[in-house]
Amino acid sequence: MLFVFEHWKETLSVTVKTISVMQTARTDYVPRMPPTLGKLADLRLAELPTTAAGGAPLLGTEGSSHLRELFPLTWQQRPIQFVGATHTSTQALPLRSHKVGVVFSGGPAPGGHNVVWGLCAALLDLAKDSELWGFCGGIGGLLSDQAKRLDLEALKDFRNAGGFDLLGTGRAKLETAEQFAACGRVLEQRGLDALVIIGGDDSNTNAAFLAEYLLGTQSKIRVLGVPKTIDGDIKNAFIEATFGFDTAAKVYADLVANIARDAISTRKYYHFIRLMGRSASHLTLEAGLLTQPNFIIIGEDVAARRQTLRELVEELGEMVKSRAKSGRNYGVVLVPEGLIEFIPEMRTLLGQTNAILADHRDYIASLSGFTAQSEFLHGKLSRDCSHTFASLPIDIQRQMLMDRDPHGNVVVSRIETEKLLIELLAAHLNEEKSCGRYSGTFGSHHHFFGYEGRCALPSNFDADYAYSLGRVAGLLVAAGVTGYMAVLSGLSRAADEQQALGVPLTAMMNLELRHGRVTPVISRALVDLSGAAWNYLVAHRQAWASGDHYQMVGPIQYFGPSLAVCH
Amino acid sequence: MLFVFEHWKETLSVTVKTISVMQTARTDYVPRMPPTLGKLADLRLAELPTTAAGGAPLLGTEGSSHLRELFPLTWQQRPIQFVGATHTSTQALPLRSHKVGVVFSGGPAPGGHNVVWGLCAALLDLAKDSELWGFCGGIGGLLSDQAKRLDLEALKDFRNAGGFDLLGTGRAKLETAEQFAACGRVLEQRGLDALVIIGGDDSNTNAAFLAEYLLGTQSKIRVLGVPKTIDGDIKNAFIEATFGFDTAAKVYADLVANIARDAISTRKYYHFIRLMGRSASHLTLEAGLLTQPNFIIIGEDVAARRQTLRELVEELGEMVKSRAKSGRNYGVVLVPEGLIEFIPEMRTLLGQTNAILADHRDYIASLSGFTAQSEFLHGKLSRDCSHTFASLPIDIQRQMLMDRDPHGNVVVSRIETEKLLIELLAAHLNEEKSCGRYSGTFGSHHHFFGYEGRCALPSNFDADYAYSLGRVAGLLVAAGVTGYMAVLSGLSRAADEQQALGVPLTAMMNLELRHGRVTPVISRALVDLSGAAWNYLVAHRQAWASGDHYQMVGPIQYFGPSLAVCH
Repeated sequence: MLFVFEHWKETLSVTVKTISVMQTARTDYVPRMPPTLGKLADLRLAELPTTAAGGAPLLGTEGSSHLRELFPLTWQQRPIQFVGATHTSTQALPLRSHKVGVVFSGGPAPGGHNVVWGLCAALLDLAKDSELWGFCGGIGGLLSDQAKRLDLEALKDFRNAGGFDLLGTGRAKLETAEQFAACGRVLEQRGLDALVIIGGDDSNTNAAFLAEYLLGTQSKIRVLGVPKTIDGDIKNAFIEATFGFDTAAKVYADLVANIARDAISTRKYYHFIRLMGRSASHLTLEAGLLTQPNFIIIGEDVAARRQTLRELVEELGEMVKSRAKSGRNYGVVLVPEGLIEFIPEMRTLLGQTNAILADHRDYIASLSGFTAQSEFLHGKLSRDCSHTFASLPIDIQRQMLMDRDPHGNVVVSRIETEKLLIELLAAHLNEEKSCGRYSGTFGSHHHFFGYEGRCALPSNFDADYAYSLGRVAGLLVAAGVTGYMAVLSGLSRAADEQQALGVPLTAMMNLELRHGRVTPVISRALVDLSGAAWNYLVAHRQAWASGDHYQMVGPIQYFGPSLAVCH
Repeated sequence: MLFVFEHWKETLSVTVKTISVMQTARTDYVPRMPPTLGKLADLRLAELPTTAAGGAPLLGTEGSSHLRELFPLTWQQRPIQFVGATHTSTQALPLRSHKVGVVFSGGPAPGGHNVVWGLCAALLDLAKDSELWGFCGGIGGLLSDQAKRLDLEALKDFRNAGGFDLLGTGRAKLETAEQFAACGRVLEQRGLDALVIIGGDDSNTNAAFLAEYLLGTQSKIRVLGVPKTIDGDIKNAFIEATFGFDTAAKVYADLVANIARDAISTRKYYHFIRLMGRSASHLTLEAGLLTQPNFIIIGEDVAARRQTLRELVEELGEMVKSRAKSGRNYGVVLVPEGLIEFIPEMRTLLGQTNAILADHRDYIASLSGFTAQSEFLHGKLSRDCSHTFASLPIDIQRQMLMDRDPHGNVVVSRIETEKLLIELLAAHLNEEKSCGRYSGTFGSHHHFFGYEGRCALPSNFDADYAYSLGRVAGLLVAAGVTGYMAVLSGLSRAADEQQALGVPLTAMMNLELRHGRVTPVISRALVDLSGAAWNYLVAHRQAWASGDHYQMVGPIQYFGPSLAVCH
């Protein structure tokens, strides 16, 4: 009930609560999982062939000598599956106690706490005296041995909750031999059997190297990964989606839909909405398909067409001009956070700028103010880049030069691309107007949604998925494997039709050229421009651009009848 | 289900839908209302005494000769109540058909469509051949006679839906005698009995003048008002809350909570979140009490203390410094949209700037660029104001000078006050650091939420309330009164304990000095600094500032068990 009502005076004496009614209600939710995951005594381990369920070849097995060299001990491992006792496989899971460490790495994603909960529950199912230790503050906290004991009591209020605040997280990486050694010492001293890293592509790549390293030192400590990112860019033959993506996409879609409804109600503004997701545009695509706005920019498409900023603005201009003809001087445009890195000339500009900022860091810092720094930069940029930089609105030039990360790099996520597009489009439309090719009005608002979705209460889908992933991680501990990722497949089906897998991290690796060296990494999956989702957009975008087909998806529902918010 | 899943290919042939599963589900929701509102044959009209239920005196009856002069025909009207047949009152409601017009005025609020639906249903209950006409595009569309026939079929998809898109809305006002005459002609020509204006304080004040005007011309057309605003600033002895406030506050609170959870998960950012609500800080207060962030700025408090911008920044600085001592270099600060108009020196600056911009409009337009315009402004501002202006970050100076409305005024809602505070606070903290009084880190993000809430799917509370208000408006039409507002009282109780009232608009008027003239207006209710909500904040803000007491309220739930998201 609302605070504005006077009768509420009666509750004035109530003390501050730190857990809301909604949170309390959510802690009662029992995540759905494949039933086999709860019957450990019946579980059997089965090896899978080296092709994924769908028949796709394993990525890392295609005879790369690089992989073999870098992962002599783990490169040949094969995927395993946890199956019921009826299965022909004979290898039962040993039921004994374990001491396990767990750590969050990188940006938060809805469902993270459920991974820890599922892991804890699985370990206690294996043996009542199992122990779970959480490292606080990400990899940095692991290296400095900041740990706390976790049990079901400690996790009580974190069941089905958003955020990573149980342990915190961090951006520190685990990359060097010294770090591997330090990590091994911490785990050893704590007497842990295994470490579970809940992280993105980089963290899981690092997990693979750590697993290999520890095996090589005759350590018995195993390393396992759980795939996490709201960006949805860990996808391959095994991983159908990462936990957190569903919730974040739906949080953003709800906001986009509300704004779209405002646009058709007041009929006077274009709303440019930037959505989180830097290296891939999955979140923008998903939120776009859910809400059907007038223009959805997908970075991968811009890059594939090698579209210039000017061409993109002109394309937006065509949409605005055409809508103006039918009296529609309003609309909604979605912009992926990482857009400017997909625009070839901007990517080049960013690259050159970063290099110049790095090479002349101290000198630039000594220059007072934007004008002096900007002049210096122009003198160092190539002619084309200097021209591109000069063509940007002054605010954007400022953001590129003044907001820099600790390494001196331009912070792409801080560049307000949605404002950039608005300013360039407004200027373009003015030109068009003066040539008589446009007679509408162009009012605009800009929005950025990111932090609103990373720590939202997980949807039932993410609550289920993350909890199951934690359980699978626990089973991988029991199975005694290392360098594996916990995987659940069949996500679009009901929980009892899903399969619990362990997939070798090396089996998901591709070779990429990074800093001049061939490096094996779990690659980021970009939007597939031959995939179903993209094709659906292509088939409908013309209709969405010219008409008003906004879908009001509404906020995520946790209770009552199951509501599929899309088709 | 998610678009990212490949199995989704099967649905590729599905044609574009314009109504989502959620919307469809919501159209089935049956709003709760006082049961008497559905039994028209049993309804009786009762006059109320000239004091409100709570014993407060009617505002307009305190012997104002002004009111008597301006509203000779309507100033003495008394509140009425719709009661069941068991009541001692004898006046039954005449059940006959009516032709009624309805119009939205001003910014959208969740529940608007339900007002129209309730009104339509009540008119059809009165007589099957009643007619409802909706004027499109606000008062402007009314004056230009843009109308469409509304019936239950036309309203089908708009039941319990957000937005004002059924009719659109507008900012045009109904103020002059010519406009009243034009409005009378339109209504007359359409053969309408009554006009229902769904709007805010200004629109309802205008409705009172229009009612008086039409009565004076012997017209039989009645004018009725329905109180709408997400800002929650129409509150008086009769009106407990406006429809839309509940939904908007909860949408914002959900986002604030998600961001707060991000703050405690990553522990490295202060989030400054500006919330809609310009003339009063109710939305910020409500969202703040629901979520318990570290600092809640309330404009009315700033004004009451005559706090300067510098003092406010220093107060924020104390909070940041104190949190840093306990290792908390993160937090959440709520900023009301209208803040700068509550800061005395900024209010003076805005006033002077607006006057200068108006007096020298053409000359300023002839000056190219910000620097020239800023120099000119400095020459005209008072010494104090010139100093204040110069002390603002350059971006904010720019926003004040460059973003102007069609009348040349500074657009306060476009000034990014949250960025202003961040910039000034960062500078202040740097000073403190250099004096050895602070050793923390200050990273920040800024957010503005407004358009996300105005057209959201109404909460069950707003769906019920707005539908009932529409029904009451229909009953006022049947009662044959004019210059009345539809009111529902007892909102914090169950629907069957609520009372349906009609309150004379003149009874809610206060006299204000506007443009040098004493003018009767339905005043905007500011945050009451002796009220329960504010006192609760005062009692707890110290604890919230130093600790982490964030409440995760979650998104609005429409189904399942009733969830009071606050205490």
